Amino acid sequence: IAKEVAKLLEMKAQLGGDEGKHKFVLKTPKGTRDYSPKQMAIRERVFNAIITCFKRHGAEVIDTPVFELKETLTGKYGEDSKLIYDLKDQGGELLSLRYDLTVPFARYLAMNKITNIKRYHIAKVYRRDNPAMTRGRYREFYQCDFDIAGQFDPMIPDAECLKIVHEILSDLQLGDFLIKVNDRRILDGMFAVCGVPDSKFRTICSSVDKLDKMPWEEVRSEMVGEKGLSPEAADHIGEYVQLHGGLDLIERLLQDPKLSQHKLAKEGLGDMKLLFEYLTLFGIAGKISFDLSLARGLDYYTGVIFEAVLLQQENDHVEESVSVGSVAGGGRYDGLVGMFDPKGRKVPCVGVSIGIERIFSILEQRVEASEEKIRTTETQVLVASAQKKLLEERLKLISELWDAGIKAEVLYKKNPKLLNQLQYCEDTGIPLVAIVGEQELKDGVVKLRVVATREEVNVRRESLVEEIRMRTSRP
Amino acid sequence: IAKEVAKLLEMKAQLGGDEGKHKFVLKTPKGTRDYSPKQMAIRERVFNAIITCFKRHGAEVIDTPVFELKETLTGKYGEDSKLIYDLKDQGGELLSLRYDLTVPFARYLAMNKITNIKRYHIAKVYRRDNPAMTRGRYREFYQCDFDIAGQFDPMIPDAECLKIVHEILSDLQLGDFLIKVNDRRILDGMFAVCGVPDSKFRTICSSVDKLDKMPWEEVRSEMVGEKGLSPEAADHIGEYVQLHGGLDLIERLLQDPKLSQHKLAKEGLGDMKLLFEYLTLFGIAGKISFDLSLARGLDYYTGVIFEAVLLQQENDHVEESVSVGSVAGGGRYDGLVGMFDPKGRKVPCVGVSIGIERIFSILEQRVEASEEKIRTTETQVLVASAQKKLLEERLKLISELWDAGIKAEVLYKKNPKLLNQLQYCEDTGIPLVAIVGEQELKDGVVKLRVVATREEVNVRRESLVEEIRMRTSRP
Repeated sequence: IAKEVAKLLEMKAQLGGDEGKHKFVLKTPKGTRDYSPKQMAIRERVFNAIITCFKRHGAEVIDTPVFELKETLTGKYGEDSKLIYDLKDQGGELLSLRYDLTVPFARYLAMNKITNIKRYHIAKVYRRDNPAMTRGRYREFYQCDFDIAGQFDPMIPDAECLKIVHEILSDLQLGDFLIKVNDRRILDGMFAVCGVPDSKFRTICSSVDKLDKMPWEEVRSEMVGEKGLSPEAADHIGEYVQLHGGLDLIERLLQDPKLSQHKLAKEGLGDMKLLFEYLTLFGIAGKISFDLSLARGLDYYTGVIFEAVLLQQENDHVEESVSVGSVAGGGRYDGLVGMFDPKGRKVPCVGVSIGIERIFSILEQRVEASEEKIRTTETQVLVASAQKKLLEERLKLISELWDAGIKAEVLYKKNPKLLNQLQYCEDTGIPLVAIVGEQELKDGVVKLRVVATREEVNVRRESLVEEIRMRTSRP
Repeated sequence: IAKEVAKLLEMKAQLGGDEGKHKFVLKTPKGTRDYSPKQMAIRERVFNAIITCFKRHGAEVIDTPVFELKETLTGKYGEDSKLIYDLKDQGGELLSLRYDLTVPFARYLAMNKITNIKRYHIAKVYRRDNPAMTRGRYREFYQCDFDIAGQFDPMIPDAECLKIVHEILSDLQLGDFLIKVNDRRILDGMFAVCGVPDSKFRTICSSVDKLDKMPWEEVRSEMVGEKGLSPEAADHIGEYVQLHGGLDLIERLLQDPKLSQHKLAKEGLGDMKLLFEYLTLFGIAGKISFDLSLARGLDYYTGVIFEAVLLQQENDHVEESVSVGSVAGGGRYDGLVGMFDPKGRKVPCVGVSIGIERIFSILEQRVEASEEKIRTTETQVLVASAQKKLLEERLKLISELWDAGIKAEVLYKKNPKLLNQLQYCEDTGIPLVAIVGEQELKDGVVKLRVVATREEVNVRRESLVEEIRMRTSRP
């Protein structure tokens, strides 16, 4: 209390001292950004590729509120819970901004007693993380989630999630990529046979998760120093987490005298083998790596986990490509819905989340480098006039075009110069100009000018809509 | 301070008492909701109509963060400021959820020194209002905004905003509607000639704004009782706010001996006349009513204001249709961008905001009533098998289809019954089934079944993609 009182007094002092002219800061909140029309055009392309893929796989779409009851998010994110944005208590319920789309999805399933759905959800999530915006790390960012909920035969939905990641990353042409796969049950088995006490599984798992950003030596010293693991156990883990491969590695571990004795690990390895069979049928096993160092931070995973990374193009001569960051991740979470159900009824789920921001950064840089000109509108025709005093005629004509579904603009000037009107088309990429003039009005025609070629033709007014449609239909 | 300490002690006591088993509440926050796949399908239709219209008028699109610095929103919303959601102070900047899309737009323009843009923005906004969800009033709701910023000749962009409202409401077939128009300058002139002191303009304006929900007598008593206006002034206002009409009323008020002497009112009336001329050219003047009772709550409007209401269909026999609620509103705000600019440079703006929730409620009810079956996926074909042990073959075939861009699903069962597979198609509206069987595999064909007609044809595997495309292309 004394501390709180001191804080309040300090606040009061600050408020009192704030008498000078207040300097207003013109910015977006830390870790957030606006999207300009050009950036939106690129973002739309990415979204289109992703949504097309999700729909190709038969997904429905849902939406949930941007905030949830605070308690809905409590106990779902382990060490990351401190990054949740809370809303101020203004009376009424305590609320938090969503941290991901998975927990709201589980809440939605439990609340509506849905036991079987394949859905996607594209929305912004919020994390009070240290932003690194040039590397595409924000506090407000999009997630594009695809999940399959329901009791099914093993690994078929899991394999489809990996197929989806493969399709999207191929479609977006982001260069070479690798999808790492592991299983929480294999990790738990590995921890058990290495002598990690049960109570330390989650925290040691968090340490392993840092292996993509830290060398093993640092991770080891965190395990031993901070988390009190025995050096022997840590070294034993160190041997396992170096391993990665395909079916051959799975077979080898199934023969591992210790691991194969662990019930969950054995189950996980059996499923991993099945998964690789399905991935081979899908023709994508070549891009998948069974990697024992993959751990994923979140608490709610219970089975298969995976993460897709882009590989650096420049280092082709190096033996192994260096990963430049995760662009998708996911896994199986069979217990999460049960945490919300009053009777604890479980709904098995597996899903994938595509991280759009990194992908978007890469494509934005690529557009910048290529000097590709991106149109930010779809306007087909500018309604213009060559002489003065024709505003009314321009408004009448554009109204006809709008009503016929033509995308049309007009300059908001009474008497714009023809040159300015043509320049506007050049600047914004409008392909056609419909010019009205005294003579054209008398003759019942409109002069249609093709901006690119400067060709001009007189079109009868009643044929104008058809002519514009024909000239602007995609080839 | 003492009060704060007491509050803290009380909170501590409460926390201490919370020892019993916590009862978890499974719900979305007050005033919010989830969207189910079916609701999303309806929402997408509405968005498509709106976006198509915005693009037809040549708008670009932008996006801004869901929260802004608290001070960005301060002093923009008058009496409604108390409805802003603040975020908890967790260290760092003080943030609030956006209350509308207009203030973030103005902040965006000032921050990027943009003086000329036509943009739309569709996003959720947040208001701690009393929700009335059956009538489409939520705490989290979508706004679809279209705004034109820039120094232009009078009333041309303003008229286009009204044209857009007219197009969207017509396109959505929501029944009869009316667009009320007024001008803040005319209102201010009216207040001045009625003897309202300058200092009371804004608060009396707020009272007038309630006329669509309260009878005049109540509004009058608020003006006189709560706000201390003289009864004479109130009665004088009462005479004006009954007036509504078209060009005739504008002409009459231009002759009004007092109002025509007020500089701003005269300007406003002159512009109103020009606006009606343009609306006549657009062929929409019949749905527009110049209405002196329209005030709009927000502080930032400086010129034309408008609001679209749907008219109740059932009361056709009543002399005047009863309005069932506002579905769009907007106006001119020439000073808002200047509030953010360090040098106070103004960017004139006019814009319209379409309120999607009410429209969505109406369309949702209509779909319920019509028993129209809405598909929530776009799947073209289900890959099925008639016999057991063909999972691998199904996965191989569906992978081929996905890679060719066909929207396809498969049941996640090792050995699903054919009947269950066909039932799934009936339930979800999938039009085609591609059936693999031993014989078909031997013959290099796939049996394609049309769900609606039960017709079955054998299609050569290499022609399957083409055949599915042909049979599912829109007519």
